Amino acid sequence: MDGFSPPMEAPRQPIGDKPPRVETHDQSRLLTLMRDEGPMSRVELGERLGLPRARLAAEVNRLAELGLVESGGPAASRGGRRSTLVGLSSSLRLLAVDIGATSVGVAVTDPYCEVLEHLVEECEVRSGPVAVLDRAVALSTLALAKVPGRLLAAGIGLPGPVSFREGMPVAPPIMPGWDRFPVRDRLASQWGCPVTVDNDVNAMALGERHAGVARSLDDLIFVKVGTGIGCGILLGGRVYRGVAGTAGDIGHIRLDDFGPACACGESGCLEAYFGGAALARDALTLARSGRSEFLAESLSRHGELSARDVALATGAGDFAAVNLVREGGRRLGQVVASLVSFINPGMVVIGGGVARLGHQLLAEVRSSVYRRSMPLATGNLPIVLSELGDLAGVIGAAWTASERAFAVTT
Amino acid sequence: MDGFSPPMEAPRQPIGDKPPRVETHDQSRLLTLMRDEGPMSRVELGERLGLPRARLAAEVNRLAELGLVESGGPAASRGGRRSTLVGLSSSLRLLAVDIGATSVGVAVTDPYCEVLEHLVEECEVRSGPVAVLDRAVALSTLALAKVPGRLLAAGIGLPGPVSFREGMPVAPPIMPGWDRFPVRDRLASQWGCPVTVDNDVNAMALGERHAGVARSLDDLIFVKVGTGIGCGILLGGRVYRGVAGTAGDIGHIRLDDFGPACACGESGCLEAYFGGAALARDALTLARSGRSEFLAESLSRHGELSARDVALATGAGDFAAVNLVREGGRRLGQVVASLVSFINPGMVVIGGGVARLGHQLLAEVRSSVYRRSMPLATGNLPIVLSELGDLAGVIGAAWTASERAFAVTT
Repeated sequence: MDGFSPPMEAPRQPIGDKPPRVETHDQSRLLTLMRDEGPMSRVELGERLGLPRARLAAEVNRLAELGLVESGGPAASRGGRRSTLVGLSSSLRLLAVDIGATSVGVAVTDPYCEVLEHLVEECEVRSGPVAVLDRAVALSTLALAKVPGRLLAAGIGLPGPVSFREGMPVAPPIMPGWDRFPVRDRLASQWGCPVTVDNDVNAMALGERHAGVARSLDDLIFVKVGTGIGCGILLGGRVYRGVAGTAGDIGHIRLDDFGPACACGESGCLEAYFGGAALARDALTLARSGRSEFLAESLSRHGELSARDVALATGAGDFAAVNLVREGGRRLGQVVASLVSFINPGMVVIGGGVARLGHQLLAEVRSSVYRRSMPLATGNLPIVLSELGDLAGVIGAAWTASERAFAVTT
Repeated sequence: MDGFSPPMEAPRQPIGDKPPRVETHDQSRLLTLMRDEGPMSRVELGERLGLPRARLAAEVNRLAELGLVESGGPAASRGGRRSTLVGLSSSLRLLAVDIGATSVGVAVTDPYCEVLEHLVEECEVRSGPVAVLDRAVALSTLALAKVPGRLLAAGIGLPGPVSFREGMPVAPPIMPGWDRFPVRDRLASQWGCPVTVDNDVNAMALGERHAGVARSLDDLIFVKVGTGIGCGILLGGRVYRGVAGTAGDIGHIRLDDFGPACACGESGCLEAYFGGAALARDALTLARSGRSEFLAESLSRHGELSARDVALATGAGDFAAVNLVREGGRRLGQVVASLVSFINPGMVVIGGGVARLGHQLLAEVRSSVYRRSMPLATGNLPIVLSELGDLAGVIGAAWTASERAFAVTT
């Protein structure tokens, strides 16, 4: 029952009726297999899961009754009679919400976590949970109206530490007013479906594993460099959260006791050197001191500077901006090198807004890691940019929601 | 069959006959439960594992036939008829070998991994696998003769990266001649029992979890500071090894590209600042430059200096030695702080030879970690010294051997 509360007041599930409950472990395995590998013939489903024919038929029929699966086109011939494919019902929908420091993104996906509709708006997470979640709900209603269907479950990503079990943020440094706000229960009662709440980088890591650059990898770290810096850790194909749920919180690793002030109240954190806000701050210094003509011009045009301006300046070959990225990438690389030596992952994925700095940043991180970690740990280690970009978070949140929807509930 | 090879030449199993094979999953669960929690009444065993009475009786009787369990004393009364305890057969033996950079330790334990006999000799790992393993075998024969019994399995800890699956070291930096030497298969054929081979710090971490300061904790890191520096990672109660088996290899994290030369061939590694060899090197400088009277005296007495002399000097309040430990502890703490932010463990245990520097070192590491990691990650985080000391490695190796011995083999 975790994550699912019956509607309590003015229940307004946008589309369809109450989501169906998965009844058996085998039903759960069938749904998960189809989500991850697409429609299959009954024969193939039975073989892959080691299910006897009669049992398989009963479970597939039950899933069809529940409206969770449907027949698709004909399967590729294997010599005998042509069989039909069984796939997840095309009318099923997953809802994914990606709350960033300065934006809200909402996606509606099909049951394979393929994005059907994606809306993004600017929105300050600092305006508090009620305002931000209301915006998210309004956006979701819009998005669901465009691609109507039967809502199975919803997944939310938040830019701070989260108690996954309780479905709420816990002491998030950049989210005033959100501490222990019951995000899951509030949204579950509004949407009338199960809701999962996770940290945004965990969602991004899962997204890249389901549909992006890390497909089929079980052990990887996803490093997000945006307004904040964080890291999602997948071990054995599952999110590793740590004992207090803060695993991956690398943005506030202190590099220097006497470093620049950080939004968390401390100083010298990695984020205070290379987060989005730090980049904007340093860009401003470069513009005002006349060390970067490009940034000075951007400043006089827009009245302010952001990490995006640094990216543009870097692209234009501005020397001071390139140096800024190099310096930041070196610091980030130093931290990532320690993590690589420590956890020996199968891949490092770099994403988030500042990752738009792209190959310059990547080169710097790579050079740090390859120079500073054990050869055995880096020998077969790809360090790559996120493939899904802005979609990583919503695809991962949809995936987590589908895990919840496809689990047996009693 | 992994880890078990039939004797190939001159099989000399020291005591007893071929170890019995565990036949069912329930037998395996029974043995593991008794190992971890001691003898129990049949009623309690059945309750704990959810086994119906008839099935339990059959499995316990079969284990008794195999010589794996025996009746112990009477159980504490629960009101009814007094029942007898069932425990692991007291004649069973596990063998544990802890190979360090400069020593070989051998322990014989009972089936609960309690050490019955422990022998340690000086031995240079650099003298190569044949010489070192022959010494280990000779010591084992001595030790087994003192506490004879039926040998179930043996576990080996090596001071370098190990392929657990293949039972051999892989590219170990301080072990010339050991690369891919078939340690497991060689010893299994000599002893005629299953053998497991693991990294020494993984063994130490498991030892502290089974019988030391980390009892009942599932997520912890064990940091060993000895001749080398390494780290064992337990997540969810299991050793986390990484994709290439190098997880935890923090000794060669590079702190400074232009730092002191390291035994691995690189420079600026953590180990080059604070491993046993680095401490001896710095102690020599302090002695010769006249900055430490205590160390100068030790040097003139013994002709050389080691980490142990630094510990003595620190204990005597020698200012220069205390500073050395502070400086090293600060560097170690810096690395541990990153790991704590990253993995959010439930405990950090510090052990190994240099850990004899004790509370001075501990204070320095604690202050670094508590200052540099997120409050949420450090709020309930104990950072403690190893409780088992020299025995951590052998107890952990015995535990891993028992896992192998108590697993179902077909």
